[in-house]
Amino acid sequence: MSVYVGVDIGGTKTRLALVSGEGRILAEKTFLPEGVGQVEVYISRLQEEIRSLLQKGRVSMEALEGVGVGCAGQISQDGRTIRFSPNLGWRDVPLADMLEARLGRPVVVENDVRAAALGEAVFGSGRGVGDMICLFVGTGVGSGILIGGHLLRGEGNLAGEVGHTKLDPEGPPCTCGGRGCLEVYVGGAHVRRRIREEILKGVETSLARVDPLHVRAVEEWARRGDPLAGRYWREIVWALGMGAANLVTLLNPRLLILGGGVVEASPVLVQHVRDAVSRWVTMLSRDRVEVVRAQLGPRAGAVGASQLPRPKATRGPSVWEDS
Amino acid sequence: MSVYVGVDIGGTKTRLALVSGEGRILAEKTFLPEGVGQVEVYISRLQEEIRSLLQKGRVSMEALEGVGVGCAGQISQDGRTIRFSPNLGWRDVPLADMLEARLGRPVVVENDVRAAALGEAVFGSGRGVGDMICLFVGTGVGSGILIGGHLLRGEGNLAGEVGHTKLDPEGPPCTCGGRGCLEVYVGGAHVRRRIREEILKGVETSLARVDPLHVRAVEEWARRGDPLAGRYWREIVWALGMGAANLVTLLNPRLLILGGGVVEASPVLVQHVRDAVSRWVTMLSRDRVEVVRAQLGPRAGAVGASQLPRPKATRGPSVWEDS
Repeated sequence: MSVYVGVDIGGTKTRLALVSGEGRILAEKTFLPEGVGQVEVYISRLQEEIRSLLQKGRVSMEALEGVGVGCAGQISQDGRTIRFSPNLGWRDVPLADMLEARLGRPVVVENDVRAAALGEAVFGSGRGVGDMICLFVGTGVGSGILIGGHLLRGEGNLAGEVGHTKLDPEGPPCTCGGRGCLEVYVGGAHVRRRIREEILKGVETSLARVDPLHVRAVEEWARRGDPLAGRYWREIVWALGMGAANLVTLLNPRLLILGGGVVEASPVLVQHVRDAVSRWVTMLSRDRVEVVRAQLGPRAGAVGASQLPRPKATRGPSVWEDS
Repeated sequence: MSVYVGVDIGGTKTRLALVSGEGRILAEKTFLPEGVGQVEVYISRLQEEIRSLLQKGRVSMEALEGVGVGCAGQISQDGRTIRFSPNLGWRDVPLADMLEARLGRPVVVENDVRAAALGEAVFGSGRGVGDMICLFVGTGVGSGILIGGHLLRGEGNLAGEVGHTKLDPEGPPCTCGGRGCLEVYVGGAHVRRRIREEILKGVETSLARVDPLHVRAVEEWARRGDPLAGRYWREIVWALGMGAANLVTLLNPRLLILGGGVVEASPVLVQHVRDAVSRWVTMLSRDRVEVVRAQLGPRAGAVGASQLPRPKATRGPSVWEDS
């Protein structure tokens, strides 16, 4: 039996998935590294955890065909080096080489959002569909675009950066240096920060007593008539709708999958996006697209990453056939 | 010698190009059909013109490997039927079958904007580059997106409809039924109509004496201090910049090619788009992209269409290799 391992390196948690050559998820595992600051120490731990995952799945290291790693940040186009990961504080880490030297098995690295999109495409809401967009709204906002089953990468491996498309170039400032990015209006971190700033300025709101502040509370207090919560909730609904509708108009996908912490906390956003697509997408394109919720939650990244080292031809015909 | 013929069916004019198997343009031709209302009459004329083009290039019908046709409107995904072309007034015309029956050679039909994008990709500004966006701004606004040398088609063959992405869903009405589409702000037909409406309302402007009204006059009168022209010109620059910058952020192409009648009349728009990309695209993506002017002008559609029936493998390695 041949197997693949997927790794999702988060800021605090690392998730692993063991997947068979036929695409069955055999085992999953999560660990909290002592810290990711020392890359060598982290990789030793990761190697150990991969070995233990293989044992859990009762397969030998020889059966391991490859390891795929998803990681937040900018990844080199050849899938070998983490150029910069702000979450981990890593710069130019040749993770694929380092892990290959230890495991003696092929390793591929990919942006975490794209790995998660691949997870939803192969194991989640996108099974059997080749043309789709997975839009993840959590702390930040990102997307993975699949065309004919292939992940769109772009010239600098940056395709899918929908979070930094601009809705209003004179809007609120974003961490990217720009203004009015989609992420500023719907990303959890920005919404929290902007609401806190309003509270500090003295705006009266029930959200001042909510801790930790989450979009779910914004939705609930908007419903209960809190003006500040209402204003932010309407903005989230509007901005996410605009961003999603423009994606559908531009790329005409079969499927738009919505996932991430914000959507999981407020699943009513899926219906709001459907409404926005009906309202703002030209007739022919909106008739073709289905808007659905992601299925895998936080597991998407690791199970998706497991598919990165697989030869395209073996990823199953319906998703991976060339269009 | 094997040859291909490309056809670009415009509202009033049809253009033809004869291209060798090695990709040399051997001959071109333009004709004005008596009218496109009667499909059968039009196709007889087209057949005749293709024969005469082959004679002009001194090749026999036997050498003709295939015909590609570009046509404004909605084309079926299998590339055989024109579902609806408002310009031509055609509905459900099985053009590929009809022309194949007459010529005895394979025929493929494609949206005219995508055919033109293919033209720029293979013969124009995009030679040797596989990942690019061709954004055409003329009477309307459309784009062709090439990924790894392949045209993006989308689920309903509608990918690239950037003209109907929304900048402001409460903006001026568009012919698509929506509001605030990119096309409303930069498409020649909408800009003309909106300026005329202002003039009819009594707004004082030197543009009232310009006939026919073209974006070039808007640019010039804006420079001379006409307030209405200034307002519209700033809006064109802003909207085209936003649309282009968001395309680059989302898709991270190597090349953004700008063409179409509006860009040809006011080529300074290319520099304005470069400025917008510098200002509104995240650092990593903007460093990778080059913004250039289209090279082929109105020839792009016909020469590009000639490449539609070609087997992918023979379209030349640099553009057509799978990425």
